[in-house]
Amino acid sequence: MKGKKREEKRTRARRERTYVNVAIVGALGYGGVGAVEILSRHPFVRITRLLDVTDIGRPLAELYPHLESVCDLQIEAADDPRRFRGIDFVFFATPDGVGQVQAREWLAHGVRVIDYSGDFRFNDVASYAGYARRIGREPRHASPELLKKSAYGLAELHRKEIRRAAVVGNPGCFAVSAILGLAPAVREGLVKFSGIVIDGKTGVSGAGKKPQAVFHYPARYESTNAYRISGHQHVFEMERELSLLAGKNLRVTFTPHVVPMTRGILSTIYADLERGIGVEELLKEYRRFYRSEPFIRVVGPDASAATSEVRGSNYVKIWVNADMRTRKAVIVSHIDNLVKGQAGSAVQNLNVMAGFPETTALEFPGLYP
Amino acid sequence: MKGKKREEKRTRARRERTYVNVAIVGALGYGGVGAVEILSRHPFVRITRLLDVTDIGRPLAELYPHLESVCDLQIEAADDPRRFRGIDFVFFATPDGVGQVQAREWLAHGVRVIDYSGDFRFNDVASYAGYARRIGREPRHASPELLKKSAYGLAELHRKEIRRAAVVGNPGCFAVSAILGLAPAVREGLVKFSGIVIDGKTGVSGAGKKPQAVFHYPARYESTNAYRISGHQHVFEMERELSLLAGKNLRVTFTPHVVPMTRGILSTIYADLERGIGVEELLKEYRRFYRSEPFIRVVGPDASAATSEVRGSNYVKIWVNADMRTRKAVIVSHIDNLVKGQAGSAVQNLNVMAGFPETTALEFPGLYP
Amino acid sequence: MKGKKREEKRTRARRERTYVNVAIVGALGYGGVGAVEILSRHPFVRITRLLDVTDIGRPLAELYPHLESVCDLQIEAADDPRRFRGIDFVFFATPDGVGQVQAREWLAHGVRVIDYSGDFRFNDVASYAGYARRIGREPRHASPELLKKSAYGLAELHRKEIRRAAVVGNPGCFAVSAILGLAPAVREGLVKFSGIVIDGKTGVSGAGKKPQAVFHYPARYESTNAYRISGHQHVFEMERELSLLAGKNLRVTFTPHVVPMTRGILSTIYADLERGIGVEELLKEYRRFYRSEPFIRVVGPDASAATSEVRGSNYVKIWVNADMRTRKAVIVSHIDNLVKGQAGSAVQNLNVMAGFPETTALEFPGLYP
Amino acid sequence: MKGKKREEKRTRARRERTYVNVAIVGALGYGGVGAVEILSRHPFVRITRLLDVTDIGRPLAELYPHLESVCDLQIEAADDPRRFRGIDFVFFATPDGVGQVQAREWLAHGVRVIDYSGDFRFNDVASYAGYARRIGREPRHASPELLKKSAYGLAELHRKEIRRAAVVGNPGCFAVSAILGLAPAVREGLVKFSGIVIDGKTGVSGAGKKPQAVFHYPARYESTNAYRISGHQHVFEMERELSLLAGKNLRVTFTPHVVPMTRGILSTIYADLERGIGVEELLKEYRRFYRSEPFIRVVGPDASAATSEVRGSNYVKIWVNADMRTRKAVIVSHIDNLVKGQAGSAVQNLNVMAGFPETTALEFPGLYP
Repeated sequence: MKGKKREEKRTRARRERTYVNVAIVGALGYGGVGAVEILSRHPFVRITRLLDVTDIGRPLAELYPHLESVCDLQIEAADDPRRFRGIDFVFFATPDGVGQVQAREWLAHGVRVIDYSGDFRFNDVASYAGYARRIGREPRHASPELLKKSAYGLAELHRKEIRRAAVVGNPGCFAVSAILGLAPAVREGLVKFSGIVIDGKTGVSGAGKKPQAVFHYPARYESTNAYRISGHQHVFEMERELSLLAGKNLRVTFTPHVVPMTRGILSTIYADLERGIGVEELLKEYRRFYRSEPFIRVVGPDASAATSEVRGSNYVKIWVNADMRTRKAVIVSHIDNLVKGQAGSAVQNLNVMAGFPETTALEFPGLYP
Repeated sequence: MKGKKREEKRTRARRERTYVNVAIVGALGYGGVGAVEILSRHPFVRITRLLDVTDIGRPLAELYPHLESVCDLQIEAADDPRRFRGIDFVFFATPDGVGQVQAREWLAHGVRVIDYSGDFRFNDVASYAGYARRIGREPRHASPELLKKSAYGLAELHRKEIRRAAVVGNPGCFAVSAILGLAPAVREGLVKFSGIVIDGKTGVSGAGKKPQAVFHYPARYESTNAYRISGHQHVFEMERELSLLAGKNLRVTFTPHVVPMTRGILSTIYADLERGIGVEELLKEYRRFYRSEPFIRVVGPDASAATSEVRGSNYVKIWVNADMRTRKAVIVSHIDNLVKGQAGSAVQNLNVMAGFPETTALEFPGLYP
Repeated sequence: MKGKKREEKRTRARRERTYVNVAIVGALGYGGVGAVEILSRHPFVRITRLLDVTDIGRPLAELYPHLESVCDLQIEAADDPRRFRGIDFVFFATPDGVGQVQAREWLAHGVRVIDYSGDFRFNDVASYAGYARRIGREPRHASPELLKKSAYGLAELHRKEIRRAAVVGNPGCFAVSAILGLAPAVREGLVKFSGIVIDGKTGVSGAGKKPQAVFHYPARYESTNAYRISGHQHVFEMERELSLLAGKNLRVTFTPHVVPMTRGILSTIYADLERGIGVEELLKEYRRFYRSEPFIRVVGPDASAATSEVRGSNYVKIWVNADMRTRKAVIVSHIDNLVKGQAGSAVQNLNVMAGFPETTALEFPGLYP
Repeated sequence: MKGKKREEKRTRARRERTYVNVAIVGALGYGGVGAVEILSRHPFVRITRLLDVTDIGRPLAELYPHLESVCDLQIEAADDPRRFRGIDFVFFATPDGVGQVQAREWLAHGVRVIDYSGDFRFNDVASYAGYARRIGREPRHASPELLKKSAYGLAELHRKEIRRAAVVGNPGCFAVSAILGLAPAVREGLVKFSGIVIDGKTGVSGAGKKPQAVFHYPARYESTNAYRISGHQHVFEMERELSLLAGKNLRVTFTPHVVPMTRGILSTIYADLERGIGVEELLKEYRRFYRSEPFIRVVGPDASAATSEVRGSNYVKIWVNADMRTRKAVIVSHIDNLVKGQAGSAVQNLNVMAGFPETTALEFPGLYP
């Protein structure tokens, strides 16, 4: 079979550490550009096609001048019939509803899919329907047959499934910070499963590149606000993943906020400590849980932490604390929403799927200050 | 008696809407300058003396050039023997430990005191000792006899005591936002008293004007961080006031954060709703509780809110919400930390103490954007 | 005559310090809101109508929540037939092309006009045509007969004309900073008239409230850029006014920049010193020229200056310097673009026109930090 | 000779693309950390020692947590006797006065030197003395014999000298932007040599990591200011380099400004066009002059440009314009002050000196937004 042969060849090529070819659908958003920034430094990747629905024929660097001489590709139409040629992986850096319709055809051409949206974050139809209903979308998935072949793209928790998945649902930015911040406590039963509060703060880039009145510079500077109280779309994947870890259904109270910065998410997590658990046990278990994870930095109460420490990088900083007067675990989890919260996780997933060392192209520390 | 006569005269003058004379100790900090900015527009106040321990003899406007032609006073020594002359009110815009030592002598000269620090926020020696111990200060108050004559300076809750108090302990900035955000719920028993979480976000000016590595512009921009988890000094006055409202002792979990802006505090408050209470009851009670308060703006779930709405003003915006899936009240409370959180409250207290209309000089809306 | 009688009555009322009634057309832009913020503190003004073309019937405070309880007016249609009733002054806080069409009717109802745009900054048809042509507008003015009754609204230079003008063309924000920064040097012949360079830096609010890609927070933070090199619309009024001061035509090279802040303009002005002129003469003449001006603060080389010193206020800070190695005067002029550069100047003009003390409602120092 | 043999071996190693060993003196400043960030990605460099005068024995990542797992070196004492061992290149990321004293000993151990300060930017004693005198330092250079072996570290202009230099004086950040922005015009005689004005705007990081009152976040946000008018230390290397290009002595008027951002320099350059020169010729010559330069991006009037386009990268963006009404060339030059303006240039110089491809480790585009 042609398809099989191609796949064999590609596998060999990968073993020999030659290139894989990557296409990006939705190349003009922050998520697409973020992937270009990282992949242009990736030794085993060739960015082969940039696809979008506007600006067809224009060089990417004309729209994002910082990429001049870094990426000289032009935007091609997202429905260009030649788009599958020679591609090994496609990134859907697109909003909900695109990947679930278009992924199928890419897969039919032997291309594995990494989707940024909520389309493939739930690998059964019922869970997806629950998610979709809550955020006001059509509950029927457009490609239900793909859900079984999909994995939730948080490598720290689903590395094995990601490795063999045809489709990976890249996690939501707030979800990355919250799930990684809670996983050890919930998995090891260190905290009570009810009453968990997640107070999330994000930079403005989380809202994407589209100008809006509330993100107009004069409206946005010197202002902090909460929004979508009790209805943010990432709460469902948080609850899904934490319930899997807990072995039983749990619910969380999550409030997102926007603070006047561009990059970064800080989630402050409050949970009642189980009897007998203090901050030492908590810290010990967090360190143990993440001991082999290259991107997770766990620190204890004597340290301090800030989003600036992970700005521009794929690292996650988890500050483990407890207020012993009230017996609350207070876990502070920090990421760069555009890297570990988006394009960085996508590349990490690509590395896992392609069998590359997981940290390839992702070990940059960001820039400080 | 001389003192009594003077007081009578002053009372008469006040009725006749003539000036009161105000001195500011610690005039060079943000809290002192904030008082100058507001009082310079106050029709019934004359700023008579600016006192500090550095820059003696220099005009304030030399150090704060925006005050040129607005305030032409020079800094005088905080221990200048003539400092009491003709003064009706003194603002101690000073850190913990100053007011409790120096207030006594001002009072002896018939001057009423408004102190910005924690020195007079607890009107009995035991409570003060508890506070002091927790923040690592000497637990014995330097002027214990004054505590009985002091009031906690949150006019919305203690207007009557403030009116007749000799000394007012101006509340902490985080405490203002948290206490006002919780008062109706706790007073009316709408939420459970245990398990309350307060997630506070402040602008950088809360740390004062002293340069520090963590507040250096390049270190501070594009960065959000939590700090002093479980040990912030304002938690004690929050618990004190909320316990008074609740009629029983309660504890809160409070985590302060710094976000990259200069002005503003947003506190997100989580509390378990009492059985039978939904968001409508909550909102109704908040509106009722604050119906006569000129500076409190209560809005319900359909609204939105941001610190920019109160930037530069003495207003408090309280956004009443609930996550009914988890039955948590989610109250978001917004203030300008330097106005309602500091100098504005101080002037509001002065208005109450002096018998002026409470909103005098405080009705400015701030500037937007 | 009805008109005359009304005018007499108004004049009497003004002498008696009663209110004038003000309508604002374009109330929903930053310029309209800025006027509301200032006029709501004005003791002799009643804001009577807010007019705009969208959001008719909605309270202003719904759109600008910081104005809740400060201004409770609703937006009325800009073409509401009752709009003229009882109005003494109308602010056209509108872009080019509106005032020149609509002013006529207001004037016919005895209402004096303050227009924010370029429509009335040139009081003869030829000058206006030159301006209009250069910025790509129809060169014929829609109400040429009004130009003779109009004055350029920079009170420091045209106080007398403003006092009796029926229409005042409020100056452009960059123009205010540049003209006031150069006026003494040009008027007194201290610098050569050719080769003058003005390097202007503005905060983002100068572009108004409409969201645009380049003013989207993530695009705008941490970025400085020049724009419209050699074609900015304010260059023509700069040249007009400076030529009047010089007594001969002069041209300037002006480059505007946007810096990542919301408020403030700093213009750095370079001009060759005339023979025999040093920095002392320069400073002396600047001080003399502005000695009676309540809003101008002149300082010499030993001082320093920043836009933060005038943030939120109507003051102008002019830092007089020279580079004697190259014999260039280097004048740095600072304003708040939304106050002295817009609504503040408009209110200052209103005060002049109405015979109020010129500083009424404008003496606030802004807030610092 | 031992020295010669070592050098031969090193040259061979370099040809074979093995590592060079680099030490950084002043590792704890922004310039040192910037070098670590870049060199940690450099395939032919091993960072071997980090030296400083404080925090001896502490891991760098403890002080700069973003470098955890990126650089695990500890700070060693700057006078540690073993500091020379095995080192090929030393970076002096130190202020004026350090390199000129300490470089000699490193050179004696066969180590080539890249110095960030003004110590080696002038390769003759007279020029250095002129510079030193103007900035108030001792005019006698501490190691005058080294000046002849030194080169000015702007590779675009001095590549050949840098290649063989023992010591390279890395250029000042403002100087990089100004010199590169003017070089083609001055070299080709397209503008008049007198009357050149350079209006520079820098982010705050240019002032280093030391907290100061004027760089305290609340003092610095929302504020733009000029400073050190006519006396900035970089003006002298600008004049030196431009005079070399012009073939005759020229002087410039330079005014530095700080704008509220952390990274980036934008210099707006004004110069009178020579007769017959228009913007087309200007642009053509700029393109020709820089046609082989990998880090220079020249664009013409139809483009736009901003510091965000070079944020975090070693690229220089030069926007070529002219105001033909006043016959001024208006050149806008953009860099990241911490990369091309400091550590990036230092690494570029290292690449040139070591014979590595000049762009090694420097092709990253930065992150956007």
